[in-house]
Amino acid sequence: MSSATMDELRQWLRRAFTLDTVGQLLGWDEQVNLPAASADQRGEQQAAIAELQHAAAKAPRIGELLTALEGETLSADEAAVVKQARRDFDRATKLPVEFVREKAQQGSRGYHAWAEARAKADFGLYAAVLERNLDLARREAAYLGWAGREYDYMIDKHDPGLSAARIGALFAELKRELVPFAREVVAAARREPAGLAWRGFAVEAQQEFLREVTERLGFDYERGRIDVSLHPFCSGSGDDVRMTTRFKDDEPLDSLFSAIHETGHGLYEQGLTRADFGTALGMAAGMAAHESQSRLWENQVGRSRGFWRFFEPRWRERFPAQTAGVTSEALYRAINAVAPTLIRVDADEVTYNLHIVLRFEIERRLFDGSLAVRDLPAAWNAASAELIGLTPTSDRDGVLQDVHWSDGSFGYFPSYTLGNMMAAQLWYRALAERPALEADFARGEFGWLLQWLRTQVHAQGRRFDALELTQRVTGEELSPRALVRYLRERYG
Amino acid sequence: MSSATMDELRQWLRRAFTLDTVGQLLGWDEQVNLPAASADQRGEQQAAIAELQHAAAKAPRIGELLTALEGETLSADEAAVVKQARRDFDRATKLPVEFVREKAQQGSRGYHAWAEARAKADFGLYAAVLERNLDLARREAAYLGWAGREYDYMIDKHDPGLSAARIGALFAELKRELVPFAREVVAAARREPAGLAWRGFAVEAQQEFLREVTERLGFDYERGRIDVSLHPFCSGSGDDVRMTTRFKDDEPLDSLFSAIHETGHGLYEQGLTRADFGTALGMAAGMAAHESQSRLWENQVGRSRGFWRFFEPRWRERFPAQTAGVTSEALYRAINAVAPTLIRVDADEVTYNLHIVLRFEIERRLFDGSLAVRDLPAAWNAASAELIGLTPTSDRDGVLQDVHWSDGSFGYFPSYTLGNMMAAQLWYRALAERPALEADFARGEFGWLLQWLRTQVHAQGRRFDALELTQRVTGEELSPRALVRYLRERYG
Repeated sequence: MSSATMDELRQWLRRAFTLDTVGQLLGWDEQVNLPAASADQRGEQQAAIAELQHAAAKAPRIGELLTALEGETLSADEAAVVKQARRDFDRATKLPVEFVREKAQQGSRGYHAWAEARAKADFGLYAAVLERNLDLARREAAYLGWAGREYDYMIDKHDPGLSAARIGALFAELKRELVPFAREVVAAARREPAGLAWRGFAVEAQQEFLREVTERLGFDYERGRIDVSLHPFCSGSGDDVRMTTRFKDDEPLDSLFSAIHETGHGLYEQGLTRADFGTALGMAAGMAAHESQSRLWENQVGRSRGFWRFFEPRWRERFPAQTAGVTSEALYRAINAVAPTLIRVDADEVTYNLHIVLRFEIERRLFDGSLAVRDLPAAWNAASAELIGLTPTSDRDGVLQDVHWSDGSFGYFPSYTLGNMMAAQLWYRALAERPALEADFARGEFGWLLQWLRTQVHAQGRRFDALELTQRVTGEELSPRALVRYLRERYG
Repeated sequence: MSSATMDELRQWLRRAFTLDTVGQLLGWDEQVNLPAASADQRGEQQAAIAELQHAAAKAPRIGELLTALEGETLSADEAAVVKQARRDFDRATKLPVEFVREKAQQGSRGYHAWAEARAKADFGLYAAVLERNLDLARREAAYLGWAGREYDYMIDKHDPGLSAARIGALFAELKRELVPFAREVVAAARREPAGLAWRGFAVEAQQEFLREVTERLGFDYERGRIDVSLHPFCSGSGDDVRMTTRFKDDEPLDSLFSAIHETGHGLYEQGLTRADFGTALGMAAGMAAHESQSRLWENQVGRSRGFWRFFEPRWRERFPAQTAGVTSEALYRAINAVAPTLIRVDADEVTYNLHIVLRFEIERRLFDGSLAVRDLPAAWNAASAELIGLTPTSDRDGVLQDVHWSDGSFGYFPSYTLGNMMAAQLWYRALAERPALEADFARGEFGWLLQWLRTQVHAQGRRFDALELTQRVTGEELSPRALVRYLRERYG
């Protein structure tokens, strides 16, 4: 790929990418560092950068270069670059600059309103934000020619090629298997002895252990960090990946698994091809693929017997008093405990997907107009009772628990379960190629798996969408079957 | 100030200001958080933002608005806004965009080259950076019509109204008094018992004490933070002020006084009028005025008996074992110990200004061509021997000690001593208005002084330059006399 036209296109894309990374850093800093009274200024900064990033993404010269390249015979890689650039360019040129600015400013305000509403468990402080975010989402879809298919638009934004109908079908299949299976597992778990009561896990020692784990999994701290925020996340690009987690001294597994989850995202970003940043060859395939990486490392790897065979002695070394009376089997059971919870990020692997089904169904109803924002808390609580068997007594544990909608990120939640499906499919494929994977883990070796993911997934960039990528790597269509098989094997 | 033209100008200035704050955040993050291998990407980000900030500052519409306003009858405030905006606009329009981009990228590279050179005590790794930064400075001066007066340009950038000749005269007067006085004080100090050997001051307890002190001085942590970096600094705007310090468990006073120094800067920024950010009414008068605030809080306040009467018991409470055998008098002497040192930021108040004279004289020679970069270490060491009485055995303690030149910030150093002069003049004026100032401090009350500085200095913004401001507030010309008086009173 050396034509002058293609080179020039790549330079323009790189510029827009660089501004995007600045916006991401502002967002990271907002959640990790921002003083309480500095939110307005941060909103102004975010809006200014979003506007400039938008201007860079819709530079008329990009349109000219694309038109020229679309008339040429291109290699598969070149065609992938052009296809994605066209998608981004069309999206950028169809959104008015005032709209982009308004949305960025609202995203920042929305985050702070959500944080306050959550702290005060007061949905009323958040409702207007949601109304406005839904309105912005509808307007955005309309600008881009998706009027009447607004929720499909929100899904396609995160996962090209997917739709509410396709996800609805996949989730229906999943529900058929999972709802009765989860009931069985939960009932069996209730007959087991009570779980462990953790106490006094010093945050500093947790941080050190977490650093050891994430480094051994392969996260490169020369090109990334981990910090603390209210809601764990991973942002930034492969050259500077910023992950977060949170610590409580009575929930050491929560911070650890959050961190392993974010490490999965971080490894994906660090595995993208640096020279291709800003183009389809150097960006993640989509959010389902992204979540497949985070969930695979968190669950298939992090909750495996092999993983703990290696890390258990190291963990006990750091927390001798706190782990003194705990057998290995009790620890493994605690790590893989199944118990319905109100909070998605605290959920076990089995019931986790029911949280996602809940959010998907609610988002679909918010967009098709059959659910009003004011009725959200009640609808949430009813769905929670039905799917998870628990009813929130406070909106803090219900509709206010997640950050996503605060900046208008609708259509993202399904990616978690799509990612779980894909993770299970990737896992069985990797196992087929290297049956000794868990024996690797037990020796503290994660390099084979990382290398395999680097080749099969990370280095592919966005040459393929989640559906194609799954088919190519595993030889099978994306489906819930591998996930159900995996959950049955581990929890049955 | 309500005319539509003026309002529109203020909006344009606000936009450039907002982008400037983004650049500052990138710079803060670079020194506080950046992973080791992420420097190239940060350089790209800095360059992109600098270019966009530059574009915003030279928007043609600003030129049109200025021309219109320059033809109108303006109030004093309006005239100040227009004068500063014209200065910035002319500077922005005369610098080519490629130059701005090159300088920003070089600034980031230069910082990392300096950090490496300093760590390895290898001036050779830094020389090319300095050559290139000097070349950039000369080119910048030429673009702006200061060819032949390059060093004056660098000074005027930081302190409008000042020049190498004026500073030369002020420094000559200061040297006449200070060099013999410093010799006397140093000789007397040598006859005193050895200073205290500090040990085992836990960083966390230092952080807590430092937080207590800076909060009581008036720093608003709702609109700012303090973090850790290699070289302490203060950046950001009044809505989000980011200070740094550094900690060693055997140098508790170093981190504390660094933090009080940066707090002085931070209080100034937080005292600017928020609604006027981006205009002369909401920006600091210049770097000398800025340093007057940091040095006044660090020295006149932080090293006073009154200050320690209040904070000493609090300090002892946090460090009972470490301070057990130390009398109050010994503590006060340690805080105000005079002993020549190679490192500027470690220097006592008396010899500190000799470090600045050294840098001013070297910068002047670098710019007038009488000193070549390759001869810098030798020239530095010779001047250090002559002025301070000590010769560095490693460039780490000599020419490599300061960050400033790494991003081309020549002409800044004189501001420290100009700030010391101004601080002493402000101090005596405040004392004349409220003789009980130290009694306030002894009760932990710093509000009168802060309020006085808010009114006299902070709220003035850049209505006046350092020379005018000093004259207006103190009724006297800027001069070294008050500084010498103060040093004689405290150390004589």
